[in-house]
Amino acid sequence: MNPTHDPTGASTGGRPIGLAVLGMGNVGTEVVRIFDESADDLRARVGAPLELRGVAVRDLTRARGIAAELLTDDAESLVTRDDVDIVVELMGGIDPARGLIRAALESGKSVVTANKALLAEYTGELATAAADAKVDLYFEAAVAGAIPVIRPLMQSLAGDTVERVAGIVNGTTNFILSAMDETGADYAETLAEAGRLGYAEADPTADVEGYDAAAKAAILASIAFHTRITAADVFREGISSVTAADLVAARKFDCTVKLLSICERIRDADGKQRVSARVYPALIPLSHPLATVNGAFNAVVVEARSAGRLMFYGQGAGGAPTASAVLGDLVMAARNKVHGGRGPLESTYAKLPVAPIDDVTTRYYVSMRVADRPGVLAQIANEFSKRSVSLAAVRQEGAGDDARLIVVTHRAPDRAQSECVAALKDMDAVLMVSSVLRMEGTDD
Amino acid sequence: MNPTHDPTGASTGGRPIGLAVLGMGNVGTEVVRIFDESADDLRARVGAPLELRGVAVRDLTRARGIAAELLTDDAESLVTRDDVDIVVELMGGIDPARGLIRAALESGKSVVTANKALLAEYTGELATAAADAKVDLYFEAAVAGAIPVIRPLMQSLAGDTVERVAGIVNGTTNFILSAMDETGADYAETLAEAGRLGYAEADPTADVEGYDAAAKAAILASIAFHTRITAADVFREGISSVTAADLVAARKFDCTVKLLSICERIRDADGKQRVSARVYPALIPLSHPLATVNGAFNAVVVEARSAGRLMFYGQGAGGAPTASAVLGDLVMAARNKVHGGRGPLESTYAKLPVAPIDDVTTRYYVSMRVADRPGVLAQIANEFSKRSVSLAAVRQEGAGDDARLIVVTHRAPDRAQSECVAALKDMDAVLMVSSVLRMEGTDD
Repeated sequence: MNPTHDPTGASTGGRPIGLAVLGMGNVGTEVVRIFDESADDLRARVGAPLELRGVAVRDLTRARGIAAELLTDDAESLVTRDDVDIVVELMGGIDPARGLIRAALESGKSVVTANKALLAEYTGELATAAADAKVDLYFEAAVAGAIPVIRPLMQSLAGDTVERVAGIVNGTTNFILSAMDETGADYAETLAEAGRLGYAEADPTADVEGYDAAAKAAILASIAFHTRITAADVFREGISSVTAADLVAARKFDCTVKLLSICERIRDADGKQRVSARVYPALIPLSHPLATVNGAFNAVVVEARSAGRLMFYGQGAGGAPTASAVLGDLVMAARNKVHGGRGPLESTYAKLPVAPIDDVTTRYYVSMRVADRPGVLAQIANEFSKRSVSLAAVRQEGAGDDARLIVVTHRAPDRAQSECVAALKDMDAVLMVSSVLRMEGTDD
Repeated sequence: MNPTHDPTGASTGGRPIGLAVLGMGNVGTEVVRIFDESADDLRARVGAPLELRGVAVRDLTRARGIAAELLTDDAESLVTRDDVDIVVELMGGIDPARGLIRAALESGKSVVTANKALLAEYTGELATAAADAKVDLYFEAAVAGAIPVIRPLMQSLAGDTVERVAGIVNGTTNFILSAMDETGADYAETLAEAGRLGYAEADPTADVEGYDAAAKAAILASIAFHTRITAADVFREGISSVTAADLVAARKFDCTVKLLSICERIRDADGKQRVSARVYPALIPLSHPLATVNGAFNAVVVEARSAGRLMFYGQGAGGAPTASAVLGDLVMAARNKVHGGRGPLESTYAKLPVAPIDDVTTRYYVSMRVADRPGVLAQIANEFSKRSVSLAAVRQEGAGDDARLIVVTHRAPDRAQSECVAALKDMDAVLMVSSVLRMEGTDD
């Protein structure tokens, strides 16, 4: 029997805890560096020495400042080695990470991972494997980098009823939107600049189209609502259609534009509860706590019935901040290996249905080019009114060929709002609907 | 053998978990209310039903909306009852809470407490008792109400090196200082108003003199620096000498005044590390994240080597928010009773010495009435210069009998700063030193 895999959870004494790291990108490099630098502190905190048994990389020939005998390209063998107690997965992506984590869990290793894409699809499968093997699966680093959000949601708020989680959890898009707001530059230009500065990847799709934020929304919603939510359950719009003009217009409504990951408990008229998880760029009031979260910073606002509104703020990405979260999980997993016991895995008892975006109550901001003639505003207002969507604000700008109308609605079902927009697009008087964004963070 | 006290930490199956609550003030009442209201959710999250076995109160005759057979004034018997697994202590104060918690721990009960005064003195004693009995001692509610700070510091940052924790963790004083800043009213008047509104107690000493904030600083510093820090180690000044004029003057330096609890890792020139824990009202720049924390809200900023700066914000007091933290701890303690295992207790291996305030590097703000004659500023500047304290800003205000001078210094050892103030008080040209405050949240 593998001596590290003791299903009674009894103490393993002062025996060293063996560690395997998969992947040596930014985060992996920082994890190994801090691990070496802080070895004495980590030993004292765990109650046993932590020893690095191996680091799996794709390309053995690239220098990495790690003793050659620790490097391997055989991750599969590494994760099941008898002298490995904890596997830290920092490769990202679904495969081969999924199989490696499963193999590790099934061999009685605890796993620490920052892999949000994987967790957004397969937390159920991985948590079940961890539960069967009576080991830990920790993933604080998967959402919002160094900011503790997983553990507070899962543990500190375990006795509360979370109503809503709204966060800025993607640094790339927040950097781009903040820069557009500051400089007035348009999206394409700012994306290029973000790439030059290292804030956007060569293929920025996962960030700018909201896939990364949606994966994190799925993880947060699953925990907050004790319901298994996957990325496919998350309604998603990216920021690539946000224009410089939108940010200027937002300011006129005392707002800015942020890409939000929103997880919401929806209470239907008949008392039934559902869950909405969604990602889109939205106007939020400048007075909202998320409005001042700029650049590569992240923040998550949690509203719970008893706790009220909580906010967590900090660096959401980068090697060192993410490594901080990974190492916190590592210390906790190692402590459990030494002292027995395990952290909570997943809680999915509530099994709430997912509400489609159509059923969610939202507010819309619609910017359009219109014919500059009398009666247009009345016609447009009529399209909203017919669908029981009331207007909160209307701004007319420009004249002649450049006549524009900006409309902000009150709360109404998203289906009605989007039907209004479709109707506008069919109107002769509306030359072009140039932007449609939602508005969040207001009470009306 | 008490069936709830299983030193192997093995699972107790689906057997109900018995709960005892000590104290039925605001928080206790909310805990019991939410406990009833959320019974189904709590059972699902714990994996076994939670059952309230008894509530200890001082006065049995006061109606509390609790079944009479659950009420008792015999807390000592309640905490050791065989059918009690977890004791929730919400009485506050040192005695009899200390003895009751010890008795509970020694009988194998896990304990959840919000008692900061007790923890600031006796965490060592209580954590040892909990370790010996292999049970949990959780106290998230002891600092900053609903805001998760204990668990993030103790667990999420377990792999990082915390450099500094600075927080607004007392709602009463923050309400008073915010109101003074808004209304221009003076301290005594605002304190009276806070009392009328229920934000200050009949005897406000523990809050306004900083004892409450100091207890929380001791708890935060102990966790952050893996060193046992008690309230006696915390340098403490309250807000009762802060004047309306100070808040006006602070604005002129683009600052406001907040009562801060500061825990800092100090690196001496020889590389040795010490810990400073201190509470005082301080000027902080309006741009600092803590400057916008108003009213009864709390916030804690943590700076760690890898994580960078994190901020946690929310409601720091009140029945429901504090109950949220208590119930989170309760669910975690109950989960451990069901599934085996325990959370971390205390970590004091670093045993860093405490630096006296004299050795801490601070900035001073000094407001004084001075003689309105040439040369006074030069004389005053000379007193600072002699002690190697350099001046960052000087403002002269008024004239004649009302001539005033406000001085803000650069960073220097607090001993030198306070010696300057003592010297000013001896100067003929200084008619009165009206205010001395420190300044925090700046780099220079």
